[in-house]
Amino acid sequence: MRVFGIEEVKGLSKKADYERLIEEFGAKPITSDLVSRFKLDHKFIELKLVFAHRDFDHYLEFAGKGEVSIVSGRGPSNYMHLGHLIVFDFIRWLQEKTDAITYIPLSDDEKYVFGKVKKLKDGWFYAIDNALDILSLGFKPGKTYLFISTRMQKIYEYAITLSRYLTYNAVKATFGLNDSCNTGVIFYAAVQAAHILYPTLERNLPVLVPIAMDQDPYMRLTRDIAERIKVVKPASIYLKYIVGLTGEPMSASKPETCIFTSDTPDIIKRKVWNTLTGGRPTVKEQRKLGGEPDKCVVYQWLTVFFYNIKEAKEHRRKCLAGELLCGECKRILIEKLNKYLVTLRQKKKKMLDKVEKYFLHEVGDLIELYLARIENREHNC
Amino acid sequence: MRVFGIEEVKGLSKKADYERLIEEFGAKPITSDLVSRFKLDHKFIELKLVFAHRDFDHYLEFAGKGEVSIVSGRGPSNYMHLGHLIVFDFIRWLQEKTDAITYIPLSDDEKYVFGKVKKLKDGWFYAIDNALDILSLGFKPGKTYLFISTRMQKIYEYAITLSRYLTYNAVKATFGLNDSCNTGVIFYAAVQAAHILYPTLERNLPVLVPIAMDQDPYMRLTRDIAERIKVVKPASIYLKYIVGLTGEPMSASKPETCIFTSDTPDIIKRKVWNTLTGGRPTVKEQRKLGGEPDKCVVYQWLTVFFYNIKEAKEHRRKCLAGELLCGECKRILIEKLNKYLVTLRQKKKKMLDKVEKYFLHEVGDLIELYLARIENREHNC
Repeated sequence: MRVFGIEEVKGLSKKADYERLIEEFGAKPITSDLVSRFKLDHKFIELKLVFAHRDFDHYLEFAGKGEVSIVSGRGPSNYMHLGHLIVFDFIRWLQEKTDAITYIPLSDDEKYVFGKVKKLKDGWFYAIDNALDILSLGFKPGKTYLFISTRMQKIYEYAITLSRYLTYNAVKATFGLNDSCNTGVIFYAAVQAAHILYPTLERNLPVLVPIAMDQDPYMRLTRDIAERIKVVKPASIYLKYIVGLTGEPMSASKPETCIFTSDTPDIIKRKVWNTLTGGRPTVKEQRKLGGEPDKCVVYQWLTVFFYNIKEAKEHRRKCLAGELLCGECKRILIEKLNKYLVTLRQKKKKMLDKVEKYFLHEVGDLIELYLARIENREHNC
Repeated sequence: MRVFGIEEVKGLSKKADYERLIEEFGAKPITSDLVSRFKLDHKFIELKLVFAHRDFDHYLEFAGKGEVSIVSGRGPSNYMHLGHLIVFDFIRWLQEKTDAITYIPLSDDEKYVFGKVKKLKDGWFYAIDNALDILSLGFKPGKTYLFISTRMQKIYEYAITLSRYLTYNAVKATFGLNDSCNTGVIFYAAVQAAHILYPTLERNLPVLVPIAMDQDPYMRLTRDIAERIKVVKPASIYLKYIVGLTGEPMSASKPETCIFTSDTPDIIKRKVWNTLTGGRPTVKEQRKLGGEPDKCVVYQWLTVFFYNIKEAKEHRRKCLAGELLCGECKRILIEKLNKYLVTLRQKKKKMLDKVEKYFLHEVGDLIELYLARIENREHNC
């Protein structure tokens, strides 16, 4: 079933890359056979937002027989936007579906060595904020574990263990580094491998990694390492990019493309009001010809973030029939976004008292740091 | 004062390298001015075994005014030999002299990424054994801290912090690496810098690093980093190699060159009996011409490990006068080595109950691992 053609949106046309992942790098498409065999009844799969995998079938077979795990990281260099959150919501569904122990590494080291934050401390602030957002989605207590990479001794220990199986040549070839890069960037390939293989090394669990396609090089390196150290290779599934409000891919470094969890109603209104639609030049034409939902970011956002398939189809029908004007749709989206964020913030506030329990290491000092900055920010507003 | 010419011993002639350190790399000689100004009354300084430094004078000035620190690491890939121990004994003297907080990093990561141990676990075994040896020398409780590098979260955190100031190019040029080296080897330069700067980053203390000359490249990189992050550059003093029993430098990978703390009386007897002396071909010639102590390893070992300067001079006089035969000297050395090791082992045994207190991280599981292996080894003897 094809609800909308996300690839056709301007600037987001990664179709060629999606195909390359399968044709050149040996990932497999998510087939209807796989979907029906394992009853994968999630909207994202139906929408083909999840489009390829490596060994996902093996992972699902393991899940039928014993304990499995999911690893899905977050690089804490900013507030989360809804594109990040919806992916974690999909992961929450995967956790439920496969009863998986879920590990969420917060890679402050990555963001720091790549210069995305000035100081590790900045990474810690966002790590706590992001953790609160993610946990507000409803991950299972006792089955969900977070850690901040530089705070986790075991990660360094495992990264060192794996680094002996990872040469500079391999890292250089995979990421196209040059010799003037810093030593942290090089080592991060081993750290990422340690994140991915943590459940296997620590508890002998098979791992599934849901990732965006641009993270696949890490996956390939890690699978090579797993083969060399003779442990089960981690499985992966690949998510497409979700279109941003400007038509480009969502990116935290381009605020107008996305809605942050910290955005106020005013900001949301402005961003949505400026977005791309599939509307006609005049109301008259719109009524007569109907809109073009496949070119409309508002329609795609409603579908990805809020509608079920039936609602999406109905909206599409109405739009094509000229029954909807762009202003109406925008108002619907704004309302839903605000409602979603109000609820999220309430949950987030409650999560503050519980968040420590989800961490694999002490985090009390970082929560204090977080609260102090939040207060300071509110004070300065 | 020159008691003996350690440079002239076969295979140990690093004179050119010693000079290069000063002439090319900008270290400074330890002058008699410095020695008298700070009353540096240690045998090693008199023997010129400690021969060069960077900013040692600044460090000593700091020590007169406030708290200072020493960092001196150990790579745990084998049992310690007496050459290692005597250096730590010198460090113990420095601790006393400058009332320094002394940090002793045990770099299991280094030994593992360079392939000197097969598994990190092997490094941990030796780390505990080495720690017991070192602490048996009498370092001050409450002023002496050990840690095993991969077990110490803060070291990874600081290594990441510093890695941004250390490019692959710099590491490559300093150590002559090639691109097929593993990623752990590259990152270790940042880890070593984190060991050295730990007291400065953690407690804002000036640091002194007593090292063998071959470690100077790490020192130069770390001083460059310190300058870039605007903290006090670590000071260093350089120790010469002590001659081994075969005339080569002592090396744990060549057991005949050294006495391990684990050597039995039989092994000690064999090793010393086979060593080089400055003896004449016949007893008659020896009595007539006298021995040649400057070519004699036994004389040098007695001087470095056991004699004070007065005793060394007296032994030298007797040898030159033909009053000593090589067999006698060997017997004296064997007796002193055995006595030393018996005492050390007694102290080491008592240290087992206290060793945990000296560590900056939990180490209980590693002590258990250590005891299990020791028992297993004794069981198999």
